[in-house]
This record gives sequence, C-alpha cells and structure tokens, in this order.
Amino acid sequence: MNIITLLSDFGLKDGYVAQMKGVISSLCTAHLIDITHEILPHNIAEGAFILRCVAPYFPKSTIHVGVVDPGVGTNRRGIIVSTDKHVFIGPDNGLLLPAAHLFGEITVYNISNKKYLQNSVSNTFHGRDIFAPVAAYIFNGIFYDEIGEKINNYIDFDFGQAKKQQNSIVGKIIYIDRFGNCITNISVDLIQNDIVYGDKINVELGDISTKILFVQSYGYGKKDDVLAIIGSSNYVEITVNQGSAAKKLSLKEGDGIQLHIS
Amino acid sequence: MNIITLLSDFGLKDGYVAQMKGVISSLCTAHLIDITHEILPHNIAEGAFILRCVAPYFPKSTIHVGVVDPGVGTNRRGIIVSTDKHVFIGPDNGLLLPAAHLFGEITVYNISNKKYLQNSVSNTFHGRDIFAPVAAYIFNGIFYDEIGEKINNYIDFDFGQAKKQQNSIVGKIIYIDRFGNCITNISVDLIQNDIVYGDKINVELGDISTKILFVQSYGYGKKDDVLAIIGSSNYVEITVNQGSAAKKLSLKEGDGIQLHIS
Amino acid sequence: MNIITLLSDFGLKDGYVAQMKGVISSLCTAHLIDITHEILPHNIAEGAFILRCVAPYFPKSTIHVGVVDPGVGTNRRGIIVSTDKHVFIGPDNGLLLPAAHLFGEITVYNISNKKYLQNSVSNTFHGRDIFAPVAAYIFNGIFYDEIGEKINNYIDFDFGQAKKQQNSIVGKIIYIDRFGNCITNISVDLIQNDIVYGDKINVELGDISTKILFVQSYGYGKKDDVLAIIGSSNYVEITVNQGSAAKKLSLKEGDGIQLHIS
Repeated sequence: MNIITLLSDFGLKDGYVAQMKGVISSLCTAHLIDITHEILPHNIAEGAFILRCVAPYFPKSTIHVGVVDPGVGTNRRGIIVSTDKHVFIGPDNGLLLPAAHLFGEITVYNISNKKYLQNSVSNTFHGRDIFAPVAAYIFNGIFYDEIGEKINNYIDFDFGQAKKQQNSIVGKIIYIDRFGNCITNISVDLIQNDIVYGDKINVELGDISTKILFVQSYGYGKKDDVLAIIGSSNYVEITVNQGSAAKKLSLKEGDGIQLHIS
Repeated sequence: MNIITLLSDFGLKDGYVAQMKGVISSLCTAHLIDITHEILPHNIAEGAFILRCVAPYFPKSTIHVGVVDPGVGTNRRGIIVSTDKHVFIGPDNGLLLPAAHLFGEITVYNISNKKYLQNSVSNTFHGRDIFAPVAAYIFNGIFYDEIGEKINNYIDFDFGQAKKQQNSIVGKIIYIDRFGNCITNISVDLIQNDIVYGDKINVELGDISTKILFVQSYGYGKKDDVLAIIGSSNYVEITVNQGSAAKKLSLKEGDGIQLHIS
Repeated sequence: MNIITLLSDFGLKDGYVAQMKGVISSLCTAHLIDITHEILPHNIAEGAFILRCVAPYFPKSTIHVGVVDPGVGTNRRGIIVSTDKHVFIGPDNGLLLPAAHLFGEITVYNISNKKYLQNSVSNTFHGRDIFAPVAAYIFNGIFYDEIGEKINNYIDFDFGQAKKQQNSIVGKIIYIDRFGNCITNISVDLIQNDIVYGDKINVELGDISTKILFVQSYGYGKKDDVLAIIGSSNYVEITVNQGSAAKKLSLKEGDGIQLHIS
C-alpha cells in the first residue's frame, strides 16, 4: 500500500485540501491519508511538530506533503527532502526538517522543472499547483534530480533543546493538544535518572510555582488533578485528569518550564 | 472492499488519528474510514451513541476501532467484541457495547498477547499502540483467541429506556447534533399507535411546557418553528426548521422529555 | 482510480457522513474523497461555491455527491446532473448547478426508481437513503435513465455577475475562507486591462472607502497590510498578510465591492 500524506493549515471547510486531492488523484493511484489540516494559520512550528510526531508511524516509502506556507508566491523555494525511508515535499521554511531529520541523512532538492507542475501555477496556492503534482510524479517513479537540483542552503528548524542544570531541568512548552495537555521539549531520556513515578516534583510553569505528581497516565490522579506524565511522543507532558491543563494553569505554547530535581 | 473504521475523541488537529492510521497502514491493506473524531473529550456515552448509529450501515466484516478512553494506562482492559457481522475493538468501558448488541450475540476477548501490540506500548495512547495493531492483525486473519482470552465480566452500557405511562411517554435527550436537533431515546415503535403526523403534542422539555407540531420533516414547518419529527435513526427528535432547537429551547444532553398522549 | 466525492453541511462530528460512506461502501468499491462537510448549515450558496471551485480538479468520470438540503423530505426532487466529464448527485435546489455548468452542456434526471434507493427511505436524510446509493449504482454502471427521467425545469443558480462600469468594477464578496480572505465575484478577466500589480486601487468595501495595494501574493505586503490579489480560483480577493481581512475590515459574505479604475 503506497501512501501520500497531507498536512496543512488549510482547515477542512474551504475545499483547498480537496483541490490538492483532486490533482493528486488525477495523476496517480496513491492512497491519501490526512495528517491534519487544522494547524493554526501560518504556524510553521506547530506544523513541524505534528509532522515530526506522526511521520515515523507510516510505512517505508510514504510521501509526505506539508503546506504551512505564509511565504507562498514570494521567492521562497519549494523543496523535496529525501531520506532513506520517507520523502517530504513542501515549502523551504523549516516545516519539513524536524520530521526528515528523524530518518538520518537527508538530501534536499529545489523544485524547478515546470514539466512536473500544474500547467498554470497560481501565486497563492502552491500546495495545489506545485507540491501536489510533484508528490504524484514522485509516487509514479520520477527521479528527484529530474524535478529539481540538489541544494545545501535550505532553511533548517528545531524546537530548542531542554537542558539539565545542577538542580533542575529547563525547557519549554512546544505544543498544546486538544485535551489541553501541555507537551514540553523535555524528553524521557533527560529525566529518567532523576525522577520516578510517584514523585512530587517542584515545578515552575510560566509564572507559577507548584508541586506536581509524576505518574504513568492520566487515570492515576483524581479528576481535575494536575499531573506530569511521559506522553505518547516520549516527552514530559503537564496534564489534568479529564480536564485541560492549559486552561487550569493558563499556559500557552512557548511558556517556560523548570523541573527541580534536587 | 474491506474496511477498518475509526471513532475517537482525539479531534483532527493533533495527529493522534494519523498515528493510528500510520500503524494500521504499516501492517495491512484495509481501507480506513473515519466515523468521527469529534466526540467530546472523555464522553463515552456520546461515542457509544454515534458508533451505534453508524456501524449498521457498513458492510459485513467491517472492523470498528473505537477510542474514548479516560482510563487509558490504568488497569482497565482492552477488548475485542466479536459479533456475527462486525468486530469492535477498544477499551472495556462500555463504548463498544450498544453498537455490538445490534448484531445479536456477542463474544468478548480481553486483549493480552503482546505479540500483536506495538513493540513499545505507551501508558497514554493505547489507540495507537494496542487497538490499531490488533485491528490490523484481525484484518490479516489472526484469530481472536490468539490475541486474547474470552471474558464475561466486560462493562456493558445502554442509553436508558423511554417508558410509556398511562397518559404520557417519558424519555430523555441522548444526543444533540450539529444542527441543534435534540435526539431522544423515544423510538418510533413507542409512539406509533398514539401520535400521527399533523398532531400538536403537549410536551414537557426540561423546565418548559409547550405544544409542538409533529411532522414528517424539517421543511413541513415555517422557518424557526419548533417541530417534532422521527429522525434518521428512528428516534423522536425535537428540531427547529433551519435553526437550532437546542439553542432556542436551551436544551442539553440528559434533559428529560415527556410527551402527553391523552 | 474511480472516485466518489462528498460535500455536505453535516459536519464531521455526528456520524451522518460516515453513514453515507457505509452505504456507498456496501454497494461499490469507489474511493471516497471528502470535499468538505463544514458548509454552514443550510447555506446552499456556500456549498455551490465550494463544489464549483473543487470539482474541476478531479479526474474524468468522478461522481460528486452534494447534500445541503433544507428542503429534505418535502416535495423538492433529487437529481442527477450529467455532464461530459463528471456526474453530480443531490437535491434540486441549485447546489450542483454552478459546478456542473463548468463542464458545458448538462442533462438533468429526476431520481425516481425506488429500486436504487435504500429499502427504507427516511424523511430527513436523503444523503444516506437516496443520494449515496444512487452514486454507488452509477459507479457500478447503471444508466441514468434507468434511475430517473429527464427533466428541464430544475432549479438553476449563479453567484451574480460582477460588472464593469465607466470608472469602476462593481461586484460582491461571495465567500470568506478560513484565513479571512474575502473572495469576490470579480474574475481576473474583468480587471486585466485596467489594473496591474503594484497599483494602489481605490476601493469601496461595504461602508468603507480605502486604498488597497494590488500584488501577486500575500507575502508582497508587510504583516497585517490589507492587499488585493488574484486568488487561486482566479477571482479578486481582499486579504491581509498573515491576518484576516474579514475581521480587520468587518466584512461578511454578500457585502458589495467597487474597484475604481479611472
């Protein structure tokens, strides 16, 4: 089963995603799977985070098209990022890179051969006119270097590294999900020698100082308890059992977090 | 055409659903169809209602994965519910049972064989790490009793029975849809000898007493008229022509309804 | 790859769309692609606009099912609109016509043969009980005139024509998308001899008089600048770089727009 996935900030109402699916389905027989189209408009970091969390679960040879693209129609380039296992297609603004780096070495191509684009390319919708047809042609076996030339000066992106200091671990909230779970950039590796299930951790969260119980899962607290867990992407999450941690603690993406471990 | 359906409270933004689809697509060639992912977070009853309304329309051998799972990572079990026609996979919290009972006799298995799970099972996302791969292995023909052992003490669930009394029929609102239609647990069978199209029914709704016209469909009233109809799932619905009954009458799920039939 | 697309105002929460997909998948092997299900409830014009924008991107022989249907269950008819390239199925209320007219000559059939409907047709959900099975049977090769008889008195619909006057072009906003871009009915053809990229246009927008820069794409303005562009459907759009024009200028669908060209 060969798959093309789609990720964007287009929403599902306006028909933009369906136009992309029409273009792809006119050119190839790929199975189309949506990753998400509800990325906050123009929020490249959010798109990059979701793509990085989801891509590894797809089978070898999956083609991922990502479009969060505030620079569409300017001189920003469109790129193909090839890895050993998956291929990523989208704008050259960092969106694709955190996901691509998970698969080791990458090669980046600047999309330039008009033969593989829609006949008439709009200035405002390269998802439909460039990235969709390029994905279909790659699915059909066209070589990357037929579509564009290798480049090294692509735009890279990461989520910042959480750091272990003498008595604390310092990071930030990089994503808040629908449940209000606040996902940090503190990976399980960084805490595993210092914190164990059942610990009450002293935590600075934005402007708040509080003590939070570290547990295996949501259900280990009472309803509405604030908890720290290792989430399904192996990062520390601040969560509320059957409630929203973001609302209860007034947290937002980018807020700092400090776990005291002494 | 062999299908795996997916129902959850994950929403479509966060990538959780796409992770499940990636896992399934890595293991089998099923066609994936979403039932819904917009169940209110942690609302098992709502998920159970939608699954029960939708499942019967799918072809024989469809595999349904349902995940509304506030107890994930605790000692609640994961189950397979086998019926003569469809199979249901998800948490043992009642979610799957109203749908499964529509198909007659059921057999329930406790998922226990780690061979059919993701290599590393998270504490917080069994949809991806347990239910998705189990669905794929069942699709591929693995026998249920190879994946788990039969159990009888699963958690059952129903929506309460509306009752006919001497001069009235008493029920409750079990679901409010996007249009604000208030779907009750009063089935068409319960009213068919007492109420006919064109009747003006005296109705108690929450705190309100009112007279409501019983008609074939929305368009039989004027714009903004409150109407009673038999909805597409064969239950009595309180509705407003081109408007929201829930808003107009301040109704919510769980509110009582009494139809006077004398 | 043979495709049935679905467009409705059902939303994705309630399971209505999934019921349609279950019915279709029980009868045929079509690939199902959603156009959108987030049309504002009962807003036929909005549905017609999206269907018209999206349909042309799908391959020959695509079957489109559209359901925005406030008159369901009354005497409004269900129709098949056949064109040289695509087929459209849905209520006879104008929804399908702007899209169908893009493909040249049309033939319209009134769905009447009960053999091709669900065994029991509800009064409130013809999407599931009539349009879904009819789409599946057409996919399977049943002839249109076996399903219904030709009619000429179908309900037509258009978005109004923008007009060129002596010193101005007068039109209206016909759709506002998720980004707050305000799409007008002024096509690129109508302005191309009078306005060029870089012009500052005097514009009346609802109650506002303002000067707006006409550019190739969003990124040609500074953040929060109001801009006029040619959108991806070849209509003039009023837009704000990385912001919402609808919010910033308090615009809504139906508002008038006048471009001064002298």
